[in-house]
Amino acid sequence: MKRHRRENNQLDTSQGFCCRGRVWIEKNSETYLGFGRMVLLQRIKEFGSISQAAKSMAMSYKHAWDLVDSMNRQAGESLVSTSKGGKGGGGASLTEAGEAAIKEFAGLLDRLDVFLAKETARLQVSMMR
Amino acid sequence: MKRHRRENNQLDTSQGFCCRGRVWIEKNSETYLGFGRMVLLQRIKEFGSISQAAKSMAMSYKHAWDLVDSMNRQAGESLVSTSKGGKGGGGASLTEAGEAAIKEFAGLLDRLDVFLAKETARLQVSMMR
Repeated sequence: MKRHRRENNQLDTSQGFCCRGRVWIEKNSETYLGFGRMVLLQRIKEFGSISQAAKSMAMSYKHAWDLVDSMNRQAGESLVSTSKGGKGGGGASLTEAGEAAIKEFAGLLDRLDVFLAKETARLQVSMMR
Repeated sequence: MKRHRRENNQLDTSQGFCCRGRVWIEKNSETYLGFGRMVLLQRIKEFGSISQAAKSMAMSYKHAWDLVDSMNRQAGESLVSTSKGGKGGGGASLTEAGEAAIKEFAGLLDRLDVFLAKETARLQVSMMR
């Protein structure tokens, strides 16, 4: 599968030095939510389908389903609800918990960006000395 | 090579949910300093030898040297200075810039830990609702 990692976009100041980072949420040492999983939830919401969401991320259906299953299991409630059959093979939508998970993680990413911007600014000072 | 990644050690509160993260410093989109590189510098200081430092990290000498070279080049000055020949094949030591780089990155890791601890505490609140 393609890796879906997010890069912070702050300007390269500090003589080209830039602080970068990545965050994720674990439960009992297993990944619960990361950038790729958040994008998967966003795409499921957008397409109303796990298979189309997976396809848009160059990810196998099985892998996408395993990720959804992992999130549902760890949250103790479904983040994604699915309906079987019908034209197009059934659909998928986010539950209220799924919407909350996206919001939660997006907020964390925003706060990480603030942290990294501060650290990049700090580098600028220390590299100038 | 073995991966040398650092895990933040804060307590798993928030029903087992825990925010984890990783940071690194790039220059022009190339890694300048990360956890593994910082440990390599610390080991070079400890052993006075790039080859012994590499061995202690289950890393090839070539890989260790490439990392040192990458850091020296990007910093625009040597972080590690080497002396040729002699018994044991010459030695290596950190320059003032090398010492400063360790201190810089260790400080960044400490501040990341504070950030992650805050985020884990925040998760506890939001997961309880």
